[in-house]
Amino acid sequence: MTAKPAPEAPEESGPRGVAALAQERWARMAWSRIAEPETASVRDWIGRHGAVESMDRLLGGTLVPDGRYDQRVAALDIDQARHALDRLQVRVVIPGDEEWPLGLDQLACPPMCLYVRGSADLGIAEGSIAVVGSRAATAYGLRVAADLGEGLVQRGVTVVSGAAFGIDAAAHRGALAGGGPTIAVLARGLDRAYPQAHEGLLREIAAEGAVVSELPPGWAPYRQRFIARNRLIAAMSVGTVVVEAGLRSGSLNTAKEARKLVRHVAAVPGPVTSVQSAGCHKLLRETDATLVTDVAEVLDLMGRLGMDAVGPARAVATLESELGDRDRSVWSAVPVRVPADLGRLQELTALDSATLLSTLGRLSMLGIVERVGERWRKVPKSRW
Amino acid sequence: MTAKPAPEAPEESGPRGVAALAQERWARMAWSRIAEPETASVRDWIGRHGAVESMDRLLGGTLVPDGRYDQRVAALDIDQARHALDRLQVRVVIPGDEEWPLGLDQLACPPMCLYVRGSADLGIAEGSIAVVGSRAATAYGLRVAADLGEGLVQRGVTVVSGAAFGIDAAAHRGALAGGGPTIAVLARGLDRAYPQAHEGLLREIAAEGAVVSELPPGWAPYRQRFIARNRLIAAMSVGTVVVEAGLRSGSLNTAKEARKLVRHVAAVPGPVTSVQSAGCHKLLRETDATLVTDVAEVLDLMGRLGMDAVGPARAVATLESELGDRDRSVWSAVPVRVPADLGRLQELTALDSATLLSTLGRLSMLGIVERVGERWRKVPKSRW
Repeated sequence: MTAKPAPEAPEESGPRGVAALAQERWARMAWSRIAEPETASVRDWIGRHGAVESMDRLLGGTLVPDGRYDQRVAALDIDQARHALDRLQVRVVIPGDEEWPLGLDQLACPPMCLYVRGSADLGIAEGSIAVVGSRAATAYGLRVAADLGEGLVQRGVTVVSGAAFGIDAAAHRGALAGGGPTIAVLARGLDRAYPQAHEGLLREIAAEGAVVSELPPGWAPYRQRFIARNRLIAAMSVGTVVVEAGLRSGSLNTAKEARKLVRHVAAVPGPVTSVQSAGCHKLLRETDATLVTDVAEVLDLMGRLGMDAVGPARAVATLESELGDRDRSVWSAVPVRVPADLGRLQELTALDSATLLSTLGRLSMLGIVERVGERWRKVPKSRW
Repeated sequence: MTAKPAPEAPEESGPRGVAALAQERWARMAWSRIAEPETASVRDWIGRHGAVESMDRLLGGTLVPDGRYDQRVAALDIDQARHALDRLQVRVVIPGDEEWPLGLDQLACPPMCLYVRGSADLGIAEGSIAVVGSRAATAYGLRVAADLGEGLVQRGVTVVSGAAFGIDAAAHRGALAGGGPTIAVLARGLDRAYPQAHEGLLREIAAEGAVVSELPPGWAPYRQRFIARNRLIAAMSVGTVVVEAGLRSGSLNTAKEARKLVRHVAAVPGPVTSVQSAGCHKLLRETDATLVTDVAEVLDLMGRLGMDAVGPARAVATLESELGDRDRSVWSAVPVRVPADLGRLQELTALDSATLLSTLGRLSMLGIVERVGERWRKVPKSRW
């Protein structure tokens, strides 16, 4: 067995806590390149010794007597991996980071780390809602998913999904149309778009939110990794809405994970004559999933829970009652991360500049929109 | 106040019980011509004094001091009413008759009597299931209602509905297509078809089952009478399935009555984009109504309860497993009341006569089909 040097704290300097966190980051990154997601023995070793020491022991050959990780340990090159991440504009987020989604810690096997590409801080996962469903969706399902995606973000709720064909993509697209943010959780490494055809969509998602994976770059999607990915979608959000699902759809697995994690599970009904609604009807008949027909009903069920978990000064649910129609349309037009100038907002709202400016002023006073130079963006929910 | 002679036992002769029942029948018929359905005071009088004595007192002017029934009492002409019923081929069924649907006795205000037109004994209401819904149904709803109607009767379950446009009519038509039987409960007297456009449908229902009303001939439908009618549909059946319903559909009222009577309530989901499914989704969200997508799920929920109430030697649910496809298609073709000859059954099943005869023989041995001369009909469930 070829033991490589233990990953050492890189150039990050400062108080000891920072150095420790850096060491932890690289150890977890190393672990993510050694073990498949949901490997209980690795979780136990890290639980017993910590990520850094257990990685030391692995590299020293004293952790695994049967040498079953030898090949991956031999191939481990942390420096190269780090350069690859820089090149891919991917960052590594670990437990203890401020943006680590705390919901993930409730998993039986939390991810070692998350690889993240995107303008948004993963704090946007707080109070988020997952909208998932079949790849082979119907026009009806696509419409409902897009409406939910758009409606949720317009009410300040981040939309989490899996970027797959069909319902997932419609939910992301709806969220983008509503001004974002949205998070795509992939079942492969972030070196490539998956599915390939969604390269453009994933770029947009990264621009308005985040694309994440627990798999290192280069790792391909397999059945077991899709299943593992589904648990991240379920754990990261306060609840999962299944829009359309055949009886064997993977989204039923996401719903099952959500239920295990005591998250809310909702399903959208459809024609009983549609096989793409059969999985939703099964959920509604055989589990305690709640039937939902629109955004208001989703928020009725999950909105409060989300807010309770996040604990902001102002509940998103009340936004609706405080804002008039014009306020709301301007608020929807204001981007989440990259501020937009007056011209862009005029384009989006079709308001004259005086009306637009006074509305922006009102939204600033409410503390939900902020001015950055001559541009405007939404105030992150966590600062409301 | 013009007091008419008390209705007396007509020419029916025999033991005292029969004469008493005849007197009771005419007293209840008289009451049905005096008071609106669900009149609590009349129910209380009859509960205290019986139908015959309270009618005597009414006619004698000693029951109602304020004379509020004077006009109707003055108009009461039992002999004329009796001739009208004969002419209309309508019979009067009262509590104590063998065919009285016992479920009606669970109502807060059971009907005085039922006016019935049809070839079938009202015993077919035992274990029956109501299939109801909006008048303004969609093509989707009509299809589902027809499928349920047909599937239920093919499994030996009578379909009860209100003969209205839309879902009700589709359920009846499906039941007729499946070989019946089906019961239409009307919110007007049986002197006229209601709705008028369903004259032919009601004739077919009477031929294969029964058309019933608690209102005497000549009484027109009013809002309150529709609501009263809905309670009969709910009480007569072991459960109610709402196929499509807008948020203000009368079928939600039938579902509410069914719930009050501790009957099963089920609703068929549909597209969340359809206003005609909104009432069903509301039922599923806000009550303990069960989501059903097909006949098997309806019988899963209600079939057993129906059988428990009827208590037959052989449960309908087991029929499915005992019969092959050919058995089943022949069984569906065999009528419930009026026996069909071999030629007619060949037409319906497209089987050669030898195969048809051997299948009929098998069904006779199972005790679910019987030969009447050279014709065949189904054995009533109560004799299985």
